[in-house]
Amino acid sequence: MKSIGEEIYAWVKDLYPINRSLSGDGVRQTLIYLKGILPNLKIVEVPSGTRAFDWTVPDEWNIRSGFIEDEKGHRVIDFHRSNLHVVGYSEPVDRMIDLDELQKHLYSLPEQPDAIPYVTSYYKRHWGFCLSENVRKSMDPGGYHVRIDSTLAPGSLTYGELILPGSSSQEVLLSTYICHPAMANNELSGLCVATALARWLQGLDKRRYTYRILLLPETIGAITYLSINLEMMRQNTMAGFVLSCLGDDREYSYVASRFGNTLADKVAKHVLKHHAPDFKYYSFLDRGSDERQYCSPGVDLPVCTLCRSKYMEYPEYHTSHDDLSLVTPAGLEGGYQMVQKCILALENNIKYRCVVPCEPQLGKRGLYPSLSTIESKVTVATMMNFLAYADGAHDLIDISEIIGVSIADLYPVVESLKEVGLLATTSEETAPEL
Amino acid sequence: MKSIGEEIYAWVKDLYPINRSLSGDGVRQTLIYLKGILPNLKIVEVPSGTRAFDWTVPDEWNIRSGFIEDEKGHRVIDFHRSNLHVVGYSEPVDRMIDLDELQKHLYSLPEQPDAIPYVTSYYKRHWGFCLSENVRKSMDPGGYHVRIDSTLAPGSLTYGELILPGSSSQEVLLSTYICHPAMANNELSGLCVATALARWLQGLDKRRYTYRILLLPETIGAITYLSINLEMMRQNTMAGFVLSCLGDDREYSYVASRFGNTLADKVAKHVLKHHAPDFKYYSFLDRGSDERQYCSPGVDLPVCTLCRSKYMEYPEYHTSHDDLSLVTPAGLEGGYQMVQKCILALENNIKYRCVVPCEPQLGKRGLYPSLSTIESKVTVATMMNFLAYADGAHDLIDISEIIGVSIADLYPVVESLKEVGLLATTSEETAPEL
Amino acid sequence: MKSIGEEIYAWVKDLYPINRSLSGDGVRQTLIYLKGILPNLKIVEVPSGTRAFDWTVPDEWNIRSGFIEDEKGHRVIDFHRSNLHVVGYSEPVDRMIDLDELQKHLYSLPEQPDAIPYVTSYYKRHWGFCLSENVRKSMDPGGYHVRIDSTLAPGSLTYGELILPGSSSQEVLLSTYICHPAMANNELSGLCVATALARWLQGLDKRRYTYRILLLPETIGAITYLSINLEMMRQNTMAGFVLSCLGDDREYSYVASRFGNTLADKVAKHVLKHHAPDFKYYSFLDRGSDERQYCSPGVDLPVCTLCRSKYMEYPEYHTSHDDLSLVTPAGLEGGYQMVQKCILALENNIKYRCVVPCEPQLGKRGLYPSLSTIESKVTVATMMNFLAYADGAHDLIDISEIIGVSIADLYPVVESLKEVGLLATTSEETAPEL
Repeated sequence: MKSIGEEIYAWVKDLYPINRSLSGDGVRQTLIYLKGILPNLKIVEVPSGTRAFDWTVPDEWNIRSGFIEDEKGHRVIDFHRSNLHVVGYSEPVDRMIDLDELQKHLYSLPEQPDAIPYVTSYYKRHWGFCLSENVRKSMDPGGYHVRIDSTLAPGSLTYGELILPGSSSQEVLLSTYICHPAMANNELSGLCVATALARWLQGLDKRRYTYRILLLPETIGAITYLSINLEMMRQNTMAGFVLSCLGDDREYSYVASRFGNTLADKVAKHVLKHHAPDFKYYSFLDRGSDERQYCSPGVDLPVCTLCRSKYMEYPEYHTSHDDLSLVTPAGLEGGYQMVQKCILALENNIKYRCVVPCEPQLGKRGLYPSLSTIESKVTVATMMNFLAYADGAHDLIDISEIIGVSIADLYPVVESLKEVGLLATTSEETAPEL
Repeated sequence: MKSIGEEIYAWVKDLYPINRSLSGDGVRQTLIYLKGILPNLKIVEVPSGTRAFDWTVPDEWNIRSGFIEDEKGHRVIDFHRSNLHVVGYSEPVDRMIDLDELQKHLYSLPEQPDAIPYVTSYYKRHWGFCLSENVRKSMDPGGYHVRIDSTLAPGSLTYGELILPGSSSQEVLLSTYICHPAMANNELSGLCVATALARWLQGLDKRRYTYRILLLPETIGAITYLSINLEMMRQNTMAGFVLSCLGDDREYSYVASRFGNTLADKVAKHVLKHHAPDFKYYSFLDRGSDERQYCSPGVDLPVCTLCRSKYMEYPEYHTSHDDLSLVTPAGLEGGYQMVQKCILALENNIKYRCVVPCEPQLGKRGLYPSLSTIESKVTVATMMNFLAYADGAHDLIDISEIIGVSIADLYPVVESLKEVGLLATTSEETAPEL
Repeated sequence: MKSIGEEIYAWVKDLYPINRSLSGDGVRQTLIYLKGILPNLKIVEVPSGTRAFDWTVPDEWNIRSGFIEDEKGHRVIDFHRSNLHVVGYSEPVDRMIDLDELQKHLYSLPEQPDAIPYVTSYYKRHWGFCLSENVRKSMDPGGYHVRIDSTLAPGSLTYGELILPGSSSQEVLLSTYICHPAMANNELSGLCVATALARWLQGLDKRRYTYRILLLPETIGAITYLSINLEMMRQNTMAGFVLSCLGDDREYSYVASRFGNTLADKVAKHVLKHHAPDFKYYSFLDRGSDERQYCSPGVDLPVCTLCRSKYMEYPEYHTSHDDLSLVTPAGLEGGYQMVQKCILALENNIKYRCVVPCEPQLGKRGLYPSLSTIESKVTVATMMNFLAYADGAHDLIDISEIIGVSIADLYPVVESLKEVGLLATTSEETAPEL
């Protein structure tokens, strides 16, 4: 049987060749593939020209081919070999051009001479090619045939939305993006981990929170979605995570919300401290993905971002080196489990109070170990410490932080104490059996 | 004339041989002795079987004798040589037993081979003997006569209570315990220092606060008392101190309340910082005495714990080495004075405001030193700094902390400024002349 | 053309020889000179005997001459050579006196043998002379003619007041003192820098705040002024600065208000961090000038103090070495600019909010640089970071602190964003064009 990491990796591999962009058929193809895994996934189209706050949904871009051919008919680069070769949203072109002039349309990375960079020009009409510095240097002076067979015309922006209702109408947002061509960590890892989490959440018997899972083109997708759903999301969203770059084998990262003080930040910081004590902290000044929109002043949702190697911070970022060798089944599984632990922490983060004043008598309930092994002493200490702070005013994460344990260590303690009727919740809060 | 330390030491010595436990005649005898010092001490009996929150007052335990005798009639151990030899609350036994089986009823400390440990089994029927590892090792295989002449039967739990009314019905709680047999630091030091403080408080002309002084069996005594008095105590208690282990010559200790933020904590931390700058700080996670009950979520009184060497933290703890050589007159006197300073700080911790805007003219009132000696400059600086913060919003400890002096340094300053009419209190608060 | 530092230095030089004290013609002469620069300066007289809170305006002191002459007619010291030679507020004296008795009236500094100290006796009738330790030691035993031709009689206390109305009746206080004889850093630097700032403020087209600029005798002047204006000042004062010792070339200093948490403190700390990162922080316990009155409990205005080398902290303080060589044009200009930056920060410290949810599209407004030079990237990052926190709840200094730039870096950003209509203020707040 496949591990969850292997399963996610297989999806990444399937989706890798598809040419995604802000809009176009590559996005649709990708969403249709994922709908195979998440049958309730809704695929939504928003027409070009639609206003979204300060922005307008742009024309749809589609591309069939693109190449540079030298005078001998040799194809120097070809879109069919790597969909990074054509600048995203390039307008069509088909002509002979001298190398000198062509240079203004070429993009390469002198410091990484064998990598093809990823470049787009969404809001300024332009055409261009990306190629490795090595190939660029090998090009002889003379004329070249450049051709990009693309269309840039009114159409629509496409996104995926999955709502999983919970006991409460209070929501948890999971958002990831779907607008990058062949790059594995940024972006397929986030997209496929989000898909796996959605499938897991869907399979649960009970969910405390309602889950809103969004697969959107970055920036314009999030802005467009918010322009339609803002009021409702402001009312209901308790916490949210932008999922991005979750598949490599390196350290975990966390990008704080605007003030780093939301429930999402609290959960992420607590879970990462125990799951990956060496995780890297980034402030909101290091933002770069859709937390830019979700945390903007007029939106201000309680959202932070979870990554392994953070976008913009690893050498392969936005190049052809962000490929299927950079992400691994183990890396994806670690990313999946970390987010899963955050969700479990959210679901279980209840305020309990002990129903009796003073310490309860654990002995008569069989909760005091008869044999004083070290392990049971640890459990008893955790149980007594938990009870000492179970005042109905502090939630499970608060108490975990005070008594210095992982929230996960409290789940069995809470379970035992609930069984013997020693715990009450302060409100109608209820924790599902997860 | 005896110093206060010597006087307290004499009481410790007198009470040392009495066999105290959760209940029984030893507790009564001890309280009757203390009533000789505090005639208003009320001795209260609570019948076995009385419900106290999650607990029930247990049967009363009394013991007349206990020994292990070998086949030659030699008494290996005898309760009359040390009342630690019998496990507390041992049920009666009188029979011949083989050493192998007897081992299951013996308790010793391999790491401290000449110390008798202190062991109890209050809530599980059991019998047993405590002895030094050396003696245990010297026991030859064969049969032994074990005998414990005890009774475990309905009776009552006994505690002492002394209420000293003050100008206000707001209360200060002093609580100590009275359930340990022959151990000097844990517990007689706390009991006898509390008694000395009670006598001092009783002798004062004025008390701002009402004092509730409790001499209780640990845990069940505090729980029982709280189950009767909780509502009233929650309403009136401004601060409280559990007094424990106050008689050795080592460093002072402080155990914080649940969040370390009550008036009691504020006073204790301020006084200790000046009285014993090297005092040891313990969080509520290090709790172990009746702060466990007073600070529990459903009770939540503003109580912290004051010790010299803290229970559980010194090598002689809960052994026969916690004897009359471990506590000293000087050690007891230091403990007494430290708690006394806390009480004085509480009594004097008033919010004053200067009655004139701007700095008052101290010169015309003779409060500016004519001769500029260094000492008087210090006093003037303290006086001016005090006036600079005497805004009616900050109490004396707040100001002491801000201006970096001990609250005790402010008592004469306040006195001088009150004499010339420069200070007002913000409410009906009044400070007694102490 | 003269620099502003040179201009201020020229004023300091002109005012240096005038004998100022708590009261008297020297203060009047000084204010008349400054009225030449600030024609709207109001010169106010408060009669001796006027009550001011706990104080009374003292008699006016004037002095025409003072000297010590030896038996040969040699003038050992003469007031006309240095006005520090006579103890301030000395009563008149004219007699022969033996050196032994004269010693009780002499003041010198053994540790600084060539410096004349500055001594006063405002509230206790006394006469005396200040001289260098070297001169004192050179005096032979024998008789001396001492003469002080002074008057101490009912008159008035004199101060200067300039009110510059702004768009708002909310006020900024600038206060400096005018009661020291020939000392350049303490006090003429503060007085002349305040004068230059007043002239600059007066010349502005718009002022957001009303400015209250006070030139007062220290302590009694501030107390007297407050006793007349307290209620109004408490209502209107948003921030204030005591300006003192602003003319030497050494490090900047800041003396916090009582709790260091007023708007004045916030501005001063932010500006100094960027203008003079090595500035010295002093708490209110180090106070010594009129912040003592402005921040006193019954007054409690939001005032802190700005200096270069702080009073009491530099070796020349309160001696004849605090002369025209200690302050420099460059030193004065630095002091002037630092306070000016504080005032600009106050005027511009508005709460803005971005008028659109999500990030605005800067590209379509030409605010995204077409050419990606490093400089423009910095500006774009500052602009994006500013927008990310422009939530109408945080003022410009808050945002500067969060995003790690000087408030001055935000002025052009705010300007650009206002021009394209992206910013709104939350209330009727308006920022002047400065």
